[in-house]
Amino acid sequence: MKRYALGLDFGTNSCRSVIVDLADGNELAAHVFSYPTGEDGILLDPQDPNVARQHPGDYGDGLVAIVAGAIKKAKKADKAFDPASIIGIGVDTTGSTPMPIDLNGVPLAMLPKFRKNLNAMAWLWKDHTAHAEAAEITDLASRTRPRYLAKCGGTYSSEWFWSKSLHCKRAAPEIFNAAHSFVEHCDYIPALLAGDTKPEHIVHGICAAGHKAMYCDEWGGLPDKEFLARLDPGLAELRDRLYEKAVPSDHLAGRLSPKWAKKLDLKPGIAIAVGAFDAHMGAVGSGVKEGVLAKILGTSTCDMMVMRADRKLADIPGVCGVVNGSIVPGYYGIEAGQSAVGDIFLWFINNLVPESYGKTSNKRFTALEKAAAALKPGAYGLLALDWNNGNRTILVDARLSGLLIGQTLHTKAHEIYRALIEATAFGALAIIKRIEEYGVPINEIVNCGGLAVKNPLLMQIYADVTGRPMKVSRSDQTCALGAAIFGAVAAGKDAGGFADVSEAQSAICGVRDTVYAPIPENQRTYAELYGLYRELHDSFGTATWYGKINHVMKRLIAIRENQRIHA
Amino acid sequence: MKRYALGLDFGTNSCRSVIVDLADGNELAAHVFSYPTGEDGILLDPQDPNVARQHPGDYGDGLVAIVAGAIKKAKKADKAFDPASIIGIGVDTTGSTPMPIDLNGVPLAMLPKFRKNLNAMAWLWKDHTAHAEAAEITDLASRTRPRYLAKCGGTYSSEWFWSKSLHCKRAAPEIFNAAHSFVEHCDYIPALLAGDTKPEHIVHGICAAGHKAMYCDEWGGLPDKEFLARLDPGLAELRDRLYEKAVPSDHLAGRLSPKWAKKLDLKPGIAIAVGAFDAHMGAVGSGVKEGVLAKILGTSTCDMMVMRADRKLADIPGVCGVVNGSIVPGYYGIEAGQSAVGDIFLWFINNLVPESYGKTSNKRFTALEKAAAALKPGAYGLLALDWNNGNRTILVDARLSGLLIGQTLHTKAHEIYRALIEATAFGALAIIKRIEEYGVPINEIVNCGGLAVKNPLLMQIYADVTGRPMKVSRSDQTCALGAAIFGAVAAGKDAGGFADVSEAQSAICGVRDTVYAPIPENQRTYAELYGLYRELHDSFGTATWYGKINHVMKRLIAIRENQRIHA
Repeated sequence: MKRYALGLDFGTNSCRSVIVDLADGNELAAHVFSYPTGEDGILLDPQDPNVARQHPGDYGDGLVAIVAGAIKKAKKADKAFDPASIIGIGVDTTGSTPMPIDLNGVPLAMLPKFRKNLNAMAWLWKDHTAHAEAAEITDLASRTRPRYLAKCGGTYSSEWFWSKSLHCKRAAPEIFNAAHSFVEHCDYIPALLAGDTKPEHIVHGICAAGHKAMYCDEWGGLPDKEFLARLDPGLAELRDRLYEKAVPSDHLAGRLSPKWAKKLDLKPGIAIAVGAFDAHMGAVGSGVKEGVLAKILGTSTCDMMVMRADRKLADIPGVCGVVNGSIVPGYYGIEAGQSAVGDIFLWFINNLVPESYGKTSNKRFTALEKAAAALKPGAYGLLALDWNNGNRTILVDARLSGLLIGQTLHTKAHEIYRALIEATAFGALAIIKRIEEYGVPINEIVNCGGLAVKNPLLMQIYADVTGRPMKVSRSDQTCALGAAIFGAVAAGKDAGGFADVSEAQSAICGVRDTVYAPIPENQRTYAELYGLYRELHDSFGTATWYGKINHVMKRLIAIRENQRIHA
Repeated sequence: MKRYALGLDFGTNSCRSVIVDLADGNELAAHVFSYPTGEDGILLDPQDPNVARQHPGDYGDGLVAIVAGAIKKAKKADKAFDPASIIGIGVDTTGSTPMPIDLNGVPLAMLPKFRKNLNAMAWLWKDHTAHAEAAEITDLASRTRPRYLAKCGGTYSSEWFWSKSLHCKRAAPEIFNAAHSFVEHCDYIPALLAGDTKPEHIVHGICAAGHKAMYCDEWGGLPDKEFLARLDPGLAELRDRLYEKAVPSDHLAGRLSPKWAKKLDLKPGIAIAVGAFDAHMGAVGSGVKEGVLAKILGTSTCDMMVMRADRKLADIPGVCGVVNGSIVPGYYGIEAGQSAVGDIFLWFINNLVPESYGKTSNKRFTALEKAAAALKPGAYGLLALDWNNGNRTILVDARLSGLLIGQTLHTKAHEIYRALIEATAFGALAIIKRIEEYGVPINEIVNCGGLAVKNPLLMQIYADVTGRPMKVSRSDQTCALGAAIFGAVAAGKDAGGFADVSEAQSAICGVRDTVYAPIPENQRTYAELYGLYRELHDSFGTATWYGKINHVMKRLIAIRENQRIHA
């Protein structure tokens, strides 16, 4: 009898499911649900581009829709399919995406009182409202708890848990005070499926805790209360209502509750794995192992590696985090990434590409790809910085912005589009160089995510810029696939699952036949362009290079904010 | 009996005429003709964005069309109008726009053999193919003839006569050798009307000669043969087939030939003024006098001032030229300018603005204006450099490019549009500061040209950025009006014209009621943004500021050219 696992992936604009055959990794069915609330599922504030929130109601609606949709399709694809043959569920989400919840574990946004309050929503990973708090946390930690910073690249980000909860305390005390606790999206969904979201019952994943909340077993879990109290007494009190222990995703978050089993047409009591972030599970779905860099290419990009936890690993400045067990249990999970990749292309296509390229976003995208692919590297004289949403790695600075240089009176949209792809490739290369400089060799690169599958031009440029072959994961839904793997591992071998991640990957993961090999001629041009990129990168991104020009972006952002406040 | 003058203005994309009543400056009729050849009248080379040529055939066709069109309209507007009451014709054109001509004064492009040869066309002012030759001329002059450079801002431009003729010699020797001579567009049209374009009979204007061909009475006219021979023996030989003397536009270029009088329905023998550049005659049409900066705002921008020639005037580094008599006879003409202003907006609207702003260029322009006008300065966090076509003043460097900084994932097209307007305003302020630093006071600014008339937002931003009121010339066709003034001055008082330019301006020129006053709040924000603009300007535009980053644009251009050559 066939056995399946169900993977659920909650992304930035939509969520999706996949039902995976545990014998061979065949994806029997998948279903996508686009979040209905806000702009592409994101709640924005016209007055403040830093704001990015989501309505938790979309998560619940999406959960039901993607499971029901996948089961329906699976039955159609295979008449013999029985939902009871699904033995486990894994869940990944974006993060750090914390949301305030009440004593009963109900998101405040679901209460009538707060249903229109932006601060009561889930604070999406790319919300940058907490940049001042991030700087404050970085400053305090660098003076008093340098070890807290060493594990997260030397800088605490505005995208992360404590920055956001502290900003909520200050900017929206009515929400902070109404909240009994804050829970990461990835911890909330498994608890919901297990039928108990009470804060004290939620099982917390090491992934979110370790990468975003400064959790580490070495120092006894979350940051100490004295440290938090110096930021704000409210944070120290919040710590008591959070958690003591966080665990990897081969652990059980719980078992499917009868209520949810009925609602979803699944067998009650099946394993629900501890949740983790999309990129981490996506890395597993891509087959990450030592020496393999898994690149998850989406609206933003995550660069994921693992290294056996019994080896010595130096702290790597500028990477988002090194957390034991955050990707594969027993291995350090190394996370780096770029704050915006697909988002930059989307922004460009939706805002700056005329309809002569096509009437819909998709048609414009196709036409831009075709026209850009016909260009020779550098022949359009453009260079860009990929910082429209700040720089996550290696500068860890949200207060940076985009830059485009080299435009003439003849510059065309598809030339800029290509320059934007190249900018993200140069950013990717900066990360690769940084990781290797600190002693983690990269022997193989496997890409996954929509951009890797749909953009051969992007993959070729990445190969040319990095000088390395680009492989692409076989699955279209690598994050959901990774989640399914954890569902099967959490279920365990006795229930028809797997003993560990490695065993599951052997059965399930693979790459596509097409491998993008670097073209030597393009490599030479890109080597020179990368040198120029690094000059711009270091000039505008660091304080130590070429004197003063690095303040320009920051002053522009400060002026912008000041003018908006007084508008 | 009424008396009129006819002004003919040959611009970048079209030519136009105006019939002016000499009693009060009333513009009885005007007519526009768009050049039919190429893209908006310009012949481009898809392989080389530096190329910008025009077909001389368009000039002749345009000449007939705009005179006939204006006369027809004048007859309709005033039944009593008699073409014989036109007493003189003035002509302005773009420049430096030289074209190769044969022994009979026929443009090579009009010969069947060369009619499709880009190098046989008129080399439009904004053609930048001769940048290497410009650097070479600058280098040789700075070592051996520094006085040649002192009058043209310290750098000889790729847009100018000797750079272009030298580049033609090298890149297209078959054209250079077939050419008996090269003539500026503004000298060619008056000669054509006078019925004799033989090189040795053409009367040459001081405007083109002094500003673009290093002509100066002080050193005996054109650059000496030894200097030219060191550039190329061919240039020294060409000098013999050019001219000994150049004169201001109150002089006669000739009198209307019977043939052309018949063709144009005008009285034979009427005065034809010596030609000059559009900006110079536009300044006169705007009422330029001492203390007044006349800004001619078009595809590019010219900033024109005059100062009595018997006063001492320092050389001003970075301005395009200081030439005795080039604007008003008896006064130094000071010319500065920006290589692209309207062209940048056109480029943006035609290439990077989606149709959600409107289906036609005009509708998009209107929608962008409206949306941009609602913004508060700096509230969009953007800053641009206005160098998409290089920098004419104060850097005199064609090998610069555009730059945009501060874009986020939320940046909209109308925000970029406003930043581009601001960039041109900052460039304008840099010019004002430079001129005043060298002892030429600016008490009043009068703007003219399409952008001044149609863009209240641009005028307001210019007032806010410069901190000075912006006046707008009354005429919609200030260059053609200035040309008409010279037609009337060249005709002389006895023929019903004027004794001099000042007398003509008193009768004819004026400004509109609307004056744009600076808004103090905006001034403060723009003062800070100008500081940031200057940092980018100096970092990317000069070799002495902040070390090395100024090479980035130049390397990008070099890579672009190299990749196009090998494409």
